Amino acid sequence: MELSFTLRGRPRAQELAQQIRFAILEGRLRAGTRLPSTRALAESVGCSRTLVTAVYEELVAEGYLEARRGSGTYVAAELPVASVVTEGLTSPPPKWLEPLRDPDGDSPGSDECRVDFTLARQVVEPVSRRSWARMWRAVGRQSPPRDAGPPEGDPGLREAIAEYVGRARGLRCGPDDVVVTTGGVRALDLVAQAVLRPGDPVAVEEPGYPAARRTLEDRGAVLLPVRVDDDGLHVVELGSAPLVVYVTPSHQYPLGVRMSVSRRVALLEWAARHDRLVVEDDYDSELRFDGPPLPALAGMERAGRVVYVGTFSKVLAPGLRLGYVVAPRWLRERLVRLRERSGDRVPWPVQRALAAFLGSGDFDRHVRRVRRQYAERRSALREALQPASGVARLRGMEAGLHAFLQFTPELDELHLAEVARRRGVRVSPLAPFYLGTPDRRGWLLAYGGLSTQQVWWGARVLTEVLLESVELRAKEPLGGRP
Amino acid sequence: MELSFTLRGRPRAQELAQQIRFAILEGRLRAGTRLPSTRALAESVGCSRTLVTAVYEELVAEGYLEARRGSGTYVAAELPVASVVTEGLTSPPPKWLEPLRDPDGDSPGSDECRVDFTLARQVVEPVSRRSWARMWRAVGRQSPPRDAGPPEGDPGLREAIAEYVGRARGLRCGPDDVVVTTGGVRALDLVAQAVLRPGDPVAVEEPGYPAARRTLEDRGAVLLPVRVDDDGLHVVELGSAPLVVYVTPSHQYPLGVRMSVSRRVALLEWAARHDRLVVEDDYDSELRFDGPPLPALAGMERAGRVVYVGTFSKVLAPGLRLGYVVAPRWLRERLVRLRERSGDRVPWPVQRALAAFLGSGDFDRHVRRVRRQYAERRSALREALQPASGVARLRGMEAGLHAFLQFTPELDELHLAEVARRRGVRVSPLAPFYLGTPDRRGWLLAYGGLSTQQVWWGARVLTEVLLESVELRAKEPLGGRP
Repeated sequence: MELSFTLRGRPRAQELAQQIRFAILEGRLRAGTRLPSTRALAESVGCSRTLVTAVYEELVAEGYLEARRGSGTYVAAELPVASVVTEGLTSPPPKWLEPLRDPDGDSPGSDECRVDFTLARQVVEPVSRRSWARMWRAVGRQSPPRDAGPPEGDPGLREAIAEYVGRARGLRCGPDDVVVTTGGVRALDLVAQAVLRPGDPVAVEEPGYPAARRTLEDRGAVLLPVRVDDDGLHVVELGSAPLVVYVTPSHQYPLGVRMSVSRRVALLEWAARHDRLVVEDDYDSELRFDGPPLPALAGMERAGRVVYVGTFSKVLAPGLRLGYVVAPRWLRERLVRLRERSGDRVPWPVQRALAAFLGSGDFDRHVRRVRRQYAERRSALREALQPASGVARLRGMEAGLHAFLQFTPELDELHLAEVARRRGVRVSPLAPFYLGTPDRRGWLLAYGGLSTQQVWWGARVLTEVLLESVELRAKEPLGGRP
Repeated sequence: MELSFTLRGRPRAQELAQQIRFAILEGRLRAGTRLPSTRALAESVGCSRTLVTAVYEELVAEGYLEARRGSGTYVAAELPVASVVTEGLTSPPPKWLEPLRDPDGDSPGSDECRVDFTLARQVVEPVSRRSWARMWRAVGRQSPPRDAGPPEGDPGLREAIAEYVGRARGLRCGPDDVVVTTGGVRALDLVAQAVLRPGDPVAVEEPGYPAARRTLEDRGAVLLPVRVDDDGLHVVELGSAPLVVYVTPSHQYPLGVRMSVSRRVALLEWAARHDRLVVEDDYDSELRFDGPPLPALAGMERAGRVVYVGTFSKVLAPGLRLGYVVAPRWLRERLVRLRERSGDRVPWPVQRALAAFLGSGDFDRHVRRVRRQYAERRSALREALQPASGVARLRGMEAGLHAFLQFTPELDELHLAEVARRRGVRVSPLAPFYLGTPDRRGWLLAYGGLSTQQVWWGARVLTEVLLESVELRAKEPLGGRP
């Protein structure tokens, strides 16, 4: 054997074991090689035979060596890689790591409850099994891609999206104005990455969409909350500080109001006057129940200061993760360059599946079908909550997959949500959707993924909870709670 | 008609046109409604009939109104949303926007060249059409998802990944230690988002992987380049400043060297001593040609200071975008919370397709097949470049899909790359992979997506270019270039 071991380190047994391990891992001692006898090795390195015997035994236990009876010690046929215990997996974090700020109060509902109206986990009516199978058959028939594809997304899908937003959202653009993303959140993240520096002020709706806020903050934005009323964002409160404003004009998240035309015009004028950027998140636009939506902001303006963000996750299947951006050229170039230099891409099979789906009549058929189903659920919600309408009024029912149940000021949304939870119905109180002090109270009720029966039963329970609390309050002045 | 228009603004025609547009967009004037005669409207708002006529004509031209011969003016049957010209798409960027720093010199090759060895666009040998069709058939047979799924990824896929990294990379872990991501870059981005604050020092290999550097910088990291030699990262140069170090120990990107066992041990000791985090990017580990790779760093350590990043994009199909992280618990919890609060997810169909693929024998068959193909291409590369071995030596051929052709110091990598390009062969010079001054010269040659014939022909051209340049240099002292 050409190997020689020199024991400089202490303790000597550990040093020798490590040197043999290294020699095996580095391939200097190959699998099946016979090691020197304990006596020979002890002599060559100048240590006791007992020490060598102990080292060999340890390495046999670890799987590096094999002892064959009567024939000596050999390097194991297979490296003992799988036997390394990764104790590290359960160790504590580094000391320099700062804790994450607390997540929003609106955590996903547990499975114990019988009806879950919370917004945290979007549950929707997915495409039919037949359409689904067709989408993936189309992908399976194509040749697997040899590269990651263009950074802006699959050309066929971009063409289908441009056609769709022109037809459905009044946003006339070509395939070259579209950038495909892995869902709506990633679309916003990519835009934020392209335009924000740490500390840049960004206006957000108050109340607003927590996931969007987190995404903006994680890219360094300092958030400026701007009040939302029944006409949408209160544009006059924007001031001139924010460089970017994030809005949901079709169906404000979470209140469900639609931004009025005059507010839209005011917002576009504000952006043009101050040279600011408007991010229009049009997340629920397909799901309107009272006629066509207003055209997208991005289709109304001429200054190149609106970027349009859309998603197909909500209307088709949340697990699909397919979003897109329609951006003015200057921004689009940045988005593509960011993609180019990071190597980030959208999974090609998902792009092809959606292109096939948009190209067939399946998309329009699906939207018609789910609109009918959701309309039924909305009716059940409205009817079941009707008896409580004196203290809790449904808002934002024109579109989307959730409604806002606005309370009269004397009702306590958090306490009553807890009462409802104990009776098996979960709701999202409004307060956590504010950065500052709430100016309204109530619950958000997501009904997209529930059956009509579940909606009905759950809403009846909520009605009882609300009416009982009013009765209790009426009795209180006489003698407090029973 | 119940509408009334009041003209306060100036100019009056524009004001009237806008009020009618708003009334139509907001639905107060419905499709098909007959407008008052020009005379009647002029009287009611107190303006000239000519002005009203001009406004009607403008709105007809814009598509808001329709003039029916002999019968008057009507609100158009369809909103003219698609007729809004989005001139904004071609406007200049806002003045406050800073230019993006320049992308790396290694831009994708154009189609003019006949053989493209550049690294910019990963082209690889994808899975067979049969396996591909099987993957997506498996997805199409399943029910479409009603929600986005758990933030850490599909349980079945995580189990398959844990089994795989245990078997192939000596990293013993369970499904709960794995987080699935949309490709390797997103995995690194998620880790960076979880641990870095703006300004945090991060050590990177010099030369190193530009996409990883950009991703870290975009999350606020200040990069500290640390030299790579033939044993991998020069650990003694790390110092104590960096909180995180990003390494590619299996097959250093771009040099292709493998980190030695003693360097690995030194790196783990460094991390434990200073309480630092090692990010191990194991991007090419499946593609070794000289026996099994060394076990992953993450499988050798016990301090919970190594996070392992893997990807299936390189070995299966770059368009798939499927990566993963094996993280110590403290980090894994953060990654999941970030996902939970942003709502970001990995497309479910891709996760299911890969789970089906890993579960079948298709994955191992595929890896065996492509290893054979790549080995053939490597041989062609080696053979065709052999005549130039006096001035350019191939390195990093043990693994991966590219090699490093190291030049003797007198050769100019940029000039010669340009000469080769003019003869139809593109290569990636090494210099752009450095943050500082290069200490080696040469070309990177990605051969994964080329046929053996292309590799042979392209490498022969490169050999000619190299040898001619040497001959030229030899003649220069006598009389300069001919």
